[in-house]
Amino acid sequence: MARVVVVTPNPAIDVTYGVADQTPGESHRVATVERRPGGKGINVARALLALGHDPVNVLPLGGGSGDWVRAALADLGLAASVTRVAGLTRTCVAITDPHGHPTVYNEPGPAVTADEWRALVADTARLLGDARMLVVSGSLPAGTDASLIGELVAVAKAAHVPVLLDVSGASLTAAARAGADILKPNEHELLDATGETDLGAATDALRAGGAGLVVVSRGTDGLVAVDDRGTYSAPAVARVAGNPTGAGDAATAGLAAALLDGLPVADALAWAAALGAAAVLRPVAGEVDLDAFHRFLNR
Amino acid sequence: MARVVVVTPNPAIDVTYGVADQTPGESHRVATVERRPGGKGINVARALLALGHDPVNVLPLGGGSGDWVRAALADLGLAASVTRVAGLTRTCVAITDPHGHPTVYNEPGPAVTADEWRALVADTARLLGDARMLVVSGSLPAGTDASLIGELVAVAKAAHVPVLLDVSGASLTAAARAGADILKPNEHELLDATGETDLGAATDALRAGGAGLVVVSRGTDGLVAVDDRGTYSAPAVARVAGNPTGAGDAATAGLAAALLDGLPVADALAWAAALGAAAVLRPVAGEVDLDAFHRFLNR
Repeated sequence: MARVVVVTPNPAIDVTYGVADQTPGESHRVATVERRPGGKGINVARALLALGHDPVNVLPLGGGSGDWVRAALADLGLAASVTRVAGLTRTCVAITDPHGHPTVYNEPGPAVTADEWRALVADTARLLGDARMLVVSGSLPAGTDASLIGELVAVAKAAHVPVLLDVSGASLTAAARAGADILKPNEHELLDATGETDLGAATDALRAGGAGLVVVSRGTDGLVAVDDRGTYSAPAVARVAGNPTGAGDAATAGLAAALLDGLPVADALAWAAALGAAAVLRPVAGEVDLDAFHRFLNR
Repeated sequence: MARVVVVTPNPAIDVTYGVADQTPGESHRVATVERRPGGKGINVARALLALGHDPVNVLPLGGGSGDWVRAALADLGLAASVTRVAGLTRTCVAITDPHGHPTVYNEPGPAVTADEWRALVADTARLLGDARMLVVSGSLPAGTDASLIGELVAVAKAAHVPVLLDVSGASLTAAARAGADILKPNEHELLDATGETDLGAATDALRAGGAGLVVVSRGTDGLVAVDDRGTYSAPAVARVAGNPTGAGDAATAGLAAALLDGLPVADALAWAAALGAAAVLRPVAGEVDLDAFHRFLNR
């Protein structure tokens, strides 16, 4: 059991509305309402907790919605270090009907001031003292300079704690430039952030920028990874149907857990694939089916 | 300036998301987010305040979203007597794009327990001591027995304060049976609640049930009213374009204000039409254009 600090820079309340149908321009009676704490890092922390690790969330929260997220994390048994911010924690709304895929509306989230970000980085640095890994997962708040992601990498390096980031866009290249130990974009995010069209060229670009290990998730095509010693790959777990929301976060947790256990990269990819598939089997994002995880690993 | 107690049985945070387009089954980045306290009674109270009256809101609020509504009312200069409830105050989401009408998703709202409802009725009764009118506007919380609306009518009658209700469905007929002084449904709500297809038969049904004055809003066809002495009508204000959300609530406030001023029913209908139209001119529900109101009255 290892203490892992997990930063969610832009948490949310994820709200799911169940409706009979969706007709643009009309009023709808919402039949069912579900709320859960959202944000990629929170899903990663939940999966690490399920695996027996000791994650502590670092996240900026504000307003009544921030209070709700804090209470909901406690209900899930998740430790949290909350950096209070002036803005109201965002909400993301998913509309589901019996006919098709959910329609999702993601609020951008409140702007985080320079002072608030500094406090969050300081909270992270303080917690790294007895941690074995730092994970940073999810988007930055709207209007935040991507270079700030480098400050999180810097405090991890200062504490001699490996840092794993699942971030996208300018944050991804900024994390590479700051010398991140492990980056875990999906294929689309990798090509988008580097401007490359070839997977190998894109991973090379991040590694040349300063990243140690780059792990790329490719959906049904599995995972590939590149580090100083070579290239690795793992197939996706075949024939798994369910809810893919949060599967990438579970894969991040599987990768982190394997590396914490000292496993080689090839095995860590298999853990990521297996835990991602174990999340698909659960209807609720953030949960994993541990029995299925062990079954998938033994295939 | 008259003290008016305004009950909003099922308040909300009204959230408006601005998006570039709405594609069912896809994820959308929300470009703009606006939040305001919602619920028909709150709009009525805002319009009464704009007219120089002294409304006090009575409403059940719970959770962080309830705290937000309380603070937002204070920011608007609106007095409020909050009945704390265990459930989380609901949110209603409107999605707007540049192409068409808003798509609205209305949460049902938390169930209000018998004890909570009793506390709300007691709060209302306490405030009626120095009030000149009670207004009850909007839906009941999900699962609430419509007969409870009769308790609000009863405390008004006990305090010798006239009560005006803008409610629908079973609440409308329950309010009539309890002997409500003034009912203000729109035409659709009136026909729906009474099961009649004829406007005259429907107003007769409510009056036979126990209601004093029945005022029916008919959109561009204006307003009609029936009391013991006869039938009255007022045309809608012609050629007013804008945002119709909240116009019915402004009309309720205009009706209430005219009756508080001792004006006859025919004049009160003209006030209702003019203030409703003055709300259409404002882009935000709950606001009224007072200059336009006076202009429309003088037409």
